[in-house]
Amino acid sequence: MECIEKWGMYELSFAGRSEGNPYIDYYIKAEFSGDNEKIVVDGFYDGDGIYRIRFMPSYTGEYSYRVWGNCLDDEKEGSFLVTPVKSSSNHGPVRVIYENFLAYEDDLPYNSIGTTCYAWVHQPDELCDLTLDTLSKSSFNKIRFCIFPKFYKYNEKEPVTYPYVRKRSAEGDFDFTWFNPEHFRRLDYYIVELTKLGIEADLILMHPYDRWGFSEMSKECDELYLRYVTARYAAFRNVWWSMANEYDLMSKGDDRWNEYGRLVTASDPYHHMCSIHNCLRYFDYGSEWITHCSMQRTDLYSHVELTDKYIKMYNKPVVWDEISYEGNIDSGWGNISGQELVRRFWEVSLRGGYAGHGETYVHPDDILWWSHGGVLHGDSFLRFAFLKKILCETPGGYIKCGQGIFDEVVGIPYDEENEATWSTVKYCSYEIHYYGFGRPSFRDYNFPEDEEYRIDVIDTWNMTVTDMGIHHGHTRISLPGREYMAVRLVRI
Amino acid sequence: MECIEKWGMYELSFAGRSEGNPYIDYYIKAEFSGDNEKIVVDGFYDGDGIYRIRFMPSYTGEYSYRVWGNCLDDEKEGSFLVTPVKSSSNHGPVRVIYENFLAYEDDLPYNSIGTTCYAWVHQPDELCDLTLDTLSKSSFNKIRFCIFPKFYKYNEKEPVTYPYVRKRSAEGDFDFTWFNPEHFRRLDYYIVELTKLGIEADLILMHPYDRWGFSEMSKECDELYLRYVTARYAAFRNVWWSMANEYDLMSKGDDRWNEYGRLVTASDPYHHMCSIHNCLRYFDYGSEWITHCSMQRTDLYSHVELTDKYIKMYNKPVVWDEISYEGNIDSGWGNISGQELVRRFWEVSLRGGYAGHGETYVHPDDILWWSHGGVLHGDSFLRFAFLKKILCETPGGYIKCGQGIFDEVVGIPYDEENEATWSTVKYCSYEIHYYGFGRPSFRDYNFPEDEEYRIDVIDTWNMTVTDMGIHHGHTRISLPGREYMAVRLVRI
Repeated sequence: MECIEKWGMYELSFAGRSEGNPYIDYYIKAEFSGDNEKIVVDGFYDGDGIYRIRFMPSYTGEYSYRVWGNCLDDEKEGSFLVTPVKSSSNHGPVRVIYENFLAYEDDLPYNSIGTTCYAWVHQPDELCDLTLDTLSKSSFNKIRFCIFPKFYKYNEKEPVTYPYVRKRSAEGDFDFTWFNPEHFRRLDYYIVELTKLGIEADLILMHPYDRWGFSEMSKECDELYLRYVTARYAAFRNVWWSMANEYDLMSKGDDRWNEYGRLVTASDPYHHMCSIHNCLRYFDYGSEWITHCSMQRTDLYSHVELTDKYIKMYNKPVVWDEISYEGNIDSGWGNISGQELVRRFWEVSLRGGYAGHGETYVHPDDILWWSHGGVLHGDSFLRFAFLKKILCETPGGYIKCGQGIFDEVVGIPYDEENEATWSTVKYCSYEIHYYGFGRPSFRDYNFPEDEEYRIDVIDTWNMTVTDMGIHHGHTRISLPGREYMAVRLVRI
Repeated sequence: MECIEKWGMYELSFAGRSEGNPYIDYYIKAEFSGDNEKIVVDGFYDGDGIYRIRFMPSYTGEYSYRVWGNCLDDEKEGSFLVTPVKSSSNHGPVRVIYENFLAYEDDLPYNSIGTTCYAWVHQPDELCDLTLDTLSKSSFNKIRFCIFPKFYKYNEKEPVTYPYVRKRSAEGDFDFTWFNPEHFRRLDYYIVELTKLGIEADLILMHPYDRWGFSEMSKECDELYLRYVTARYAAFRNVWWSMANEYDLMSKGDDRWNEYGRLVTASDPYHHMCSIHNCLRYFDYGSEWITHCSMQRTDLYSHVELTDKYIKMYNKPVVWDEISYEGNIDSGWGNISGQELVRRFWEVSLRGGYAGHGETYVHPDDILWWSHGGVLHGDSFLRFAFLKKILCETPGGYIKCGQGIFDEVVGIPYDEENEATWSTVKYCSYEIHYYGFGRPSFRDYNFPEDEEYRIDVIDTWNMTVTDMGIHHGHTRISLPGREYMAVRLVRI
């Protein structure tokens, strides 16, 4: 019997009718049944007379399936075996846990270190391979990118493939009812490669940077597209849905976005992460189809420091997907220093949120990581493995912003039962105080005389942890008077 | 005939009765009359049986005076001549001009570069002299300090003198009705020294950092004190009144502050600058006795960037007296870098406000500039002369925050008539774009084809101005991709 790993992607394919427009005129569906779940999924047409059905099992054991549709002459049946997870990069899909945090389905905390390469999959193969190679050596575990090609400054080349075929000639308008399978097969390939690397694929379904008309299709064509991509990609465990990038630069309106969000979540039997990303105005993240806040800063000066406020306001995980990029282009959203971007990552992380990176260094051939991928040129990406390591050391797995003392950020472990303890007990069992652009040369602590604390000084930029020994009572800890330092207090 | 320079301090002194408590039991007043003004002032008792009357003439020509009071046996009369200004540091008192800006009374724009040394006048003479020496070599033209001594962290030594005498013994409680003339004579001396240096004395009348009871006197004693200091100091042209530092850490309440503010302005015939400085909550700067907003940042991350918002809100000049100090002490308000403080100065200045410096570097003898004066250890103070030079080059004298493009601060010259022009005309005759922590490696400009612009690149940290030539039409200007750069556009 055929075998597949739990949370793996199981694919069936069938030749079927293709007269007329097979993307509209025919459907194919399947029901998958195991001991613990029974799921109906839509298949999709992949060109050349072939229909495919993809399924992700969430349990082990034997599964059977039944396939039907008006593209087929008769129903198909079969069965396969789902084995326990073997590959180390497979922890299942990312889910919301404890309302505001993220974990893989196997309960491993997901400390998201995102990056953005909007149009990397639309670049020539060699560049895509180079991007994968860079990712494989990095600490990124999420990448945000667009299904539609991108037209924007520094992005004026044509994509390698288009998502639709042209109507009459190679120069004609695109037919928004006729997908180009080649475009989506490339995407399939790269999503699989990301899966192998253990990197979440945050798929941007729509965006405004367009000269081909993809951003302004009719509602019918939009819906056809959304059904197609959910049928095609929902069975990949690492997929997230981002309804749009900078939705508020598009003309669809909030009601339409809510309709589309509901369509996507209704079409996705696995309940992947789903959100919508803003430019100037946050969407109402309270909408029931939104799993997390996918945010871009809306102010030049005050943004990630509001992470804990937003978590409280929406009671959902906060994922900052755009907090300015490290680089040197002309725009303010793309020319901060590596130090400043790393500072923003630490602020976000210690306030209980998740941050995203991007790089926008001027390049002679306009190959900027933020859009095209390739190689990294900056200083910030080298510091994220260290941040991730520190976050992974959090007892219980989840760090939460505690009672802030005027001039410091306090991160303490998430504790569902004792949410109030940190406001009454001065020192919890584990705290990280991050000083950001502050440069204290010492800090005083008044520990209880009968409790002992191990103190580490963390240099978040130089990536060192210095053991300052075990202390009780009044304690003064020397610090180097540099920016980007943190102190970790652990009760023994 | 006796001569005095316009805006100089003219002092009369008389021996008078001193039985009982001369600070309460007697008064002395004088009327000064010239061709253009007639002013009645209060005198004050200066110990040793001597009463003094101080007057600042605002016009040239002959003045006569008449003195009376219950401390005197008979009225006194006399006259003196006021000559035109001779000393280069004398431009008269600072006034509000064009609602939101500051100028000396002779119409020279006052580009305030403040610093804070709260308790410098309460230090030993040698240290005070050192502070004056440091100030004389600096570009500061305002210093903020307290009349009452200060008790606070890093400030645990007793002051050289106390403002009051003790009741019975050298160890007894202070008598809040009996001033200590020695304390105020020292202050006289230092205010005169500041006058010579052309530095405004921003006198903090009350503050909460106290262990001697001066912050919690009765209303009657507070008022006695306020009348005493206004009688004593109003005639110095460089005096500003700061009703309090961190007023909201004191228990007097807003109504009381309004009463006290009105008392001070009613007692000051010269209408000196007058405000009140906050800790966590801004005072209602709309109060009629307040000439300008004397602000401390109330948020760690977003503050000086709101300068233009506050100017609009209160329609008064905004003076940021506390925006974190350069240093390395343990507190977040005292450990930012020189770069960050200079960045804040530029943000404030290009948004049409005025900023204040302070330095808090740990010192083996607890001599921190912010409180004690002495010498400067930081990097920021070296950059203010350059900022002042750039500000002085502003055509018309006053810079105003223009229509901000999303990621940049635009400063354009103040133009009472054409406030709307910069929202309709893309390029005014003079603009400075400051990029702060942004690091653009170029900027594009679309000048009209028939207008020519001179472009300077300003490195605000390294203090260089690079002439980039004269341009029209589409122009790309190279920038070094470093932080803290500005571009100046001047239409020819």
